Order: sequence, then C-alpha cells, then structure tokens
Amino acid sequence: MEINLPEVVEEVRLAFNRYEQALVNNDVAVLDQLFWQHPATIRYGATENLYGHAAIAQFRAQRSPQGLARQLTRTVITTYGRDFATANTEFAKVSGQLGRQSQTWMRTEDGWHVVSAHVSFLPD
Amino acid sequence: MEINLPEVVEEVRLAFNRYEQALVNNDVAVLDQLFWQHPATIRYGATENLYGHAAIAQFRAQRSPQGLARQLTRTVITTYGRDFATANTEFAKVSGQLGRQSQTWMRTEDGWHVVSAHVSFLPD
Repeated sequence: MEINLPEVVEEVRLAFNRYEQALVNNDVAVLDQLFWQHPATIRYGATENLYGHAAIAQFRAQRSPQGLARQLTRTVITTYGRDFATANTEFAKVSGQLGRQSQTWMRTEDGWHVVSAHVSFLPD
Repeated sequence: MEINLPEVVEEVRLAFNRYEQALVNNDVAVLDQLFWQHPATIRYGATENLYGHAAIAQFRAQRSPQGLARQLTRTVITTYGRDFATANTEFAKVSGQLGRQSQTWMRTEDGWHVVSAHVSFLPD
C-alpha cells in the first residue's frame, strides 16, 4: 500500500477543495454529487446522525444557507494506494467556535466520493 | 470495488470488537497496537485533536481509566474491497450522554489498523 502518492494526493486535494467551496456556498448539487450515492454512506453532523445518501441529501436541501463560512486549519490529506483517502481538518467559524471535520474518500468510476464523514465542535 | 465482502466484514468486525473491549477496559497496549503506527494517524477525541501515533499513545497512557463504559448502538461496518473499511457507531455513556465514533480501518501486513478516528458527543 503506497502512502501519499503525489498525484493521488493532488486529486483528493482538488476534490476536498471543491467540497469546501460547495459547503460554504451551500451548493447542494455539488455536495450531493461528492457524497457517495449509496445507502451505506454516513454523515455524523454537528447535531445530527444521517444514514444513507438520501438522508444526507434531504438534510442539505433543508439546511439554512446562513452561517456556513469557516476558516480551515491543519488540513491533513492522506492517501492509501490509489483509491482511498482520508481528509481531516480543523476549522473555525466566524463566531470563533472551533470544530473538526473527518472524511473518508473513495475513488469510483466517476471520481472521488465521500463515503463517511464526521463533523463536531470542540467543547467551549 | 466490492462492497461488504462477507469475510472482510467479519475480519473488521473482530478488529472493531477487540478495539471496543480494549477501550472500555483501558487496555492501552491493545489500543496502541490497533492504531496505525504512523505519523499520519489522526484521532480527534471528544476534547482533543491528536496528530500521529505517538501523540495518540501518549494520550492513552495518561488517560483516566474511570468512566469509559458505554453502550453501542447502530454500529455500521462497511468494507471497500479487501483492504479498507469504515466503522461508525453511536454510543451512550452511563451518564446518558450520547456520542458518535467514526473510524477508518486499513489492512496492513500485520492486520487491520485504525488510520483515522473521530469521537464526539452530541449537544445536550
């Protein structure tokens, strides 16, 4: 298993950045596309546990587009071979609240997708 | 990419259960063995962000062994091919506090290891 092949890291970084731009702009179509379209996809959000792509898409569709801006720090992308990756980042909201986001990415025939995600805030 | 090959799911379930037993019993040697021995391993805990196997092991060594009991619910293990898996679970502490644990597992030459983990509590 080759760790952090540079061209694979670059691919995942592009997908990760595309996700981040879509998130802060509430671009629901891109967010839905980047999550794996499968019932096994899981997203633990800051206040909700979502099982399956359909539940995640429903959450996105209903989410307020306000207050999504954030600043990323200590982003770490690690790739394992050519088809798997993890992307972990800390973030700060405009309010100063500090959080963490973990994603597991998989390459499929139509590109990279998030198969599992977990977002949480640190206690104040 | 074959999803959820039964024999692979069973392997990961055994590793996941071994981790859970070690966690609630504070068996630090097993916890350290099950996390990938690599600087890229990340563990976002309920109150701390840990980068690299050494930092995670240091945290384990200093952790109080009290209050680690918990009840798991909705555990979902998903395998991707033969070498990658995610394990997500909700849990309840004896206090009633509800949390979530996400792990990404990779098979290496000496077995399955957690390469990334994220644990958080839901807001009350």
